[in-house]
Amino acid sequence: MSYNLLKGKKGIIFGALDENSIAWKTAERVHEEGGEFVLTNAPVAMRLGQIKELAKKTGSEIIPADATSEEDLANLVSRSMEILGGKIDFVLHAIGMSINVRKGRAYTDEKYDFTTKGWDVSALSFHKVLQSLYKADAMNEWGSIVALTYMAAQRVFPDYNDMADNKAYLESVARSFGYFFGKEKKVRVNTISQSPTPTTAGQGVKGFDGFISYAEKMSPLGNATALECADYTVTLFSDLTKKVTMQNLFHDGGFSNTGVSQEVIEQFS
Amino acid sequence: MSYNLLKGKKGIIFGALDENSIAWKTAERVHEEGGEFVLTNAPVAMRLGQIKELAKKTGSEIIPADATSEEDLANLVSRSMEILGGKIDFVLHAIGMSINVRKGRAYTDEKYDFTTKGWDVSALSFHKVLQSLYKADAMNEWGSIVALTYMAAQRVFPDYNDMADNKAYLESVARSFGYFFGKEKKVRVNTISQSPTPTTAGQGVKGFDGFISYAEKMSPLGNATALECADYTVTLFSDLTKKVTMQNLFHDGGFSNTGVSQEVIEQFS
Amino acid sequence: MSYNLLKGKKGIIFGALDENSIAWKTAERVHEEGGEFVLTNAPVAMRLGQIKELAKKTGSEIIPADATSEEDLANLVSRSMEILGGKIDFVLHAIGMSINVRKGRAYTDEKYDFTTKGWDVSALSFHKVLQSLYKADAMNEWGSIVALTYMAAQRVFPDYNDMADNKAYLESVARSFGYFFGKEKKVRVNTISQSPTPTTAGQGVKGFDGFISYAEKMSPLGNATALECADYTVTLFSDLTKKVTMQNLFHDGGFSNTGVSQEVIEQFS
Amino acid sequence: MSYNLLKGKKGIIFGALDENSIAWKTAERVHEEGGEFVLTNAPVAMRLGQIKELAKKTGSEIIPADATSEEDLANLVSRSMEILGGKIDFVLHAIGMSINVRKGRAYTDEKYDFTTKGWDVSALSFHKVLQSLYKADAMNEWGSIVALTYMAAQRVFPDYNDMADNKAYLESVARSFGYFFGKEKKVRVNTISQSPTPTTAGQGVKGFDGFISYAEKMSPLGNATALECADYTVTLFSDLTKKVTMQNLFHDGGFSNTGVSQEVIEQFS
Repeated sequence: MSYNLLKGKKGIIFGALDENSIAWKTAERVHEEGGEFVLTNAPVAMRLGQIKELAKKTGSEIIPADATSEEDLANLVSRSMEILGGKIDFVLHAIGMSINVRKGRAYTDEKYDFTTKGWDVSALSFHKVLQSLYKADAMNEWGSIVALTYMAAQRVFPDYNDMADNKAYLESVARSFGYFFGKEKKVRVNTISQSPTPTTAGQGVKGFDGFISYAEKMSPLGNATALECADYTVTLFSDLTKKVTMQNLFHDGGFSNTGVSQEVIEQFS
Repeated sequence: MSYNLLKGKKGIIFGALDENSIAWKTAERVHEEGGEFVLTNAPVAMRLGQIKELAKKTGSEIIPADATSEEDLANLVSRSMEILGGKIDFVLHAIGMSINVRKGRAYTDEKYDFTTKGWDVSALSFHKVLQSLYKADAMNEWGSIVALTYMAAQRVFPDYNDMADNKAYLESVARSFGYFFGKEKKVRVNTISQSPTPTTAGQGVKGFDGFISYAEKMSPLGNATALECADYTVTLFSDLTKKVTMQNLFHDGGFSNTGVSQEVIEQFS
Repeated sequence: MSYNLLKGKKGIIFGALDENSIAWKTAERVHEEGGEFVLTNAPVAMRLGQIKELAKKTGSEIIPADATSEEDLANLVSRSMEILGGKIDFVLHAIGMSINVRKGRAYTDEKYDFTTKGWDVSALSFHKVLQSLYKADAMNEWGSIVALTYMAAQRVFPDYNDMADNKAYLESVARSFGYFFGKEKKVRVNTISQSPTPTTAGQGVKGFDGFISYAEKMSPLGNATALECADYTVTLFSDLTKKVTMQNLFHDGGFSNTGVSQEVIEQFS
Repeated sequence: MSYNLLKGKKGIIFGALDENSIAWKTAERVHEEGGEFVLTNAPVAMRLGQIKELAKKTGSEIIPADATSEEDLANLVSRSMEILGGKIDFVLHAIGMSINVRKGRAYTDEKYDFTTKGWDVSALSFHKVLQSLYKADAMNEWGSIVALTYMAAQRVFPDYNDMADNKAYLESVARSFGYFFGKEKKVRVNTISQSPTPTTAGQGVKGFDGFISYAEKMSPLGNATALECADYTVTLFSDLTKKVTMQNLFHDGGFSNTGVSQEVIEQFS
């Protein structure tokens, strides 16, 4: 399926690790829709992943960058414009990681070095990406920037831990920077709040399988897949959504507005 | 327990049916806190309930009024001022009823006569109450008007049926009228979004017991009781909350911001 | 511009009055994207409008229907399937009207006959449309239903009057019916909360010009136009947004999440 | 005015700087309502402020603590319990500071060392306070913890800068920790989203006077004062609000749900 929705558009895609990644699926779909892009990921993540395969498949170059490093980001932005031959139309930020989660620290027993590092990687990195693009005047008018988030920013999912707070910060950055990027550059900034998705990252969260199953039963249309998220992201990168900005957009089969479903309530009757 | 929080304040309390009613508990607590009030209910509800007992206990008079009738409401307001000897400081609207629910009509099979009647009783009645008070200039400055609502106005609870839409309308009325009542008369208008409560009305909803049990498990502090709701309402009627207006206030042990609880997720693991 | 996003899709579009209408622009864009549809409007609105011109331009048939009449809607649904040769993929509900506004009644001085009629036309009509489609099993799987709304459902705009409450009801219907339509038929239901738009209907609201100007200054990307709304609606009708449901989607240049803009604050410094 | 609402309750109040502080007013009101407490502030803030005067007036002890230091907080908690003779019933967190704002850095030109420090002081400090109390098992059942926040966490106010993102993080911490504190200790955690208030801290924000004036005109009941915020906080510390938790509570004269006011729109007509 291709509609040429992104023909002639140029972008940067952060966070493709392997074929389970939402960023991976997005890269594939953007490619199908005619978009060109640079792939980027943290050097350490690149060693773990199969990003070269994706680059080959989509005719893309890879520029390693630590998204917490202003220097790396400045380099990424300037080299991307060189490679792509002009300013940027779309950016996907799909980066997140909690060291507290990885190390098995409960939310009520955070180690604050871990918290700070996780916040820098998962939340502040989005500000850094935006500021790098803004300062380099790297975005075309009506460009579109999307970051992935999760509903734990609004409601508590106990195992999501400090990622909830990071996502709340990230969503705030989308609004705050979206204001200035809109006013000054006519660029839109949004977040997609996606169903729990069995990515390699997602699967690391404790109790993830039970949670996926619960979310499936609580979503009238079922959980949204990584591919469906890629499709949705394509619409947000396209010229058909020019006035959507500073929004957090739920892409979750209806989970966010379902108080309880029939299947779930039956467990308690 | 009494703090004299409402000493010298005068009000009208709608919807006390029997001792399970939130309005009943509120009347008792307001009385303990030194407030005086008129009790009112629909003539038909009064026949079913034990409101006379409550009136006796709290030294109150009862004025029957159909809350969908402008004439009844005008009479209620003017007589209340006579009885209480002045303008009104607080009003509780605790009225709701879905004929579709009573008659077993699914949300996808509404009978629109029922829908219209339920909307008039459950939602528009709040506008009528507010407009009656406003037109009669019956509220003292810094008076406080509260209506009870339920979170189905934000998220879907399948068995709640068309009451969800009625509560959404009611909450909108609180905001809209709150603007004008605030500007013109310095009166505040809010809604309390209460936990599912085993009132006589609540118990009529299909699958209510299972739902109460689910909500209990999803609320970090457990469901809020009718008495606790009465306590909370007292604070909103007091002089300590003068700048809270046009808000929908969740009183639910944390249910509204809990995405899932450990107990619930364990059912799916 | 055309991407063939809606090739082979069939639908019903309510509410095209004249070329300023969002529904009119949507019909044109849907047509460009390869969709086929039936146009419908109230008989009285059709006399006022130029809908025949639109029908001719887009190769569509017109079926008059009063959206408050179950009978008219049942006829509309069955005839649409005949004309289009199968089930429905998309529906646009763009209907709204406040008699209180037209007659110059303030929000604090509503005439309740007007209120009830306005609610029936503007809010309950959406339930009636959905129920008609649901009962006739008229929607294809993964079909998409969109209604237009306005942010007055969340925040008060004094001149919007009882339309605010109607839109709150309408948005609740989208969630409630979206749950059942999702579960049972895999159909999504959403509302678009659009910038104030100088349609023939919008222009009837008191103080509309001042408000448009204010909204323009409060929206980092400026107000969204009717054509841009049509573009956005096309994405929601397409197969790229299959898991977006029960949402209220702001399409407003960022207005909804802007607390104040620099231009506005400067008026007060 | 005193109702003895907090008789016998013990607490900790962070952030009283001078008599313009909300924390100062809260300390005075809590004292009037019969509560006892320890005052705390950062050593540097204490040098600037007149906290000793407040301590004298309310019969309180002062324990200096840097709210970003786990060691200081552990000491504060244990010494407070000694001084007060038992566990804690209420805590007020009123701490916030943006170095980017102080140094005149625009939101699009953040210096990330400043950002990180500001986040630690303004947002993470709340988690640290909560974790210190939790680990020391220092809270009585049905205790109440409140942090002050601002609506910039939901909508953009350009001059509020990175404090917006900090407040979004803080509000998320209230929800996340509120879940665990509720489940495990029956303690409630909420934030109050207060009108812009001419505190010494608030006045440092660029364009603050214009903003206060705008907010006044956009709030149907006018801006909430520091004293009114203290009153409201008292209700949240009292036993009358036991089931309110994980909420962000707007205390703003209706600003948050006012889309536009008549006075403001008139500037644009």
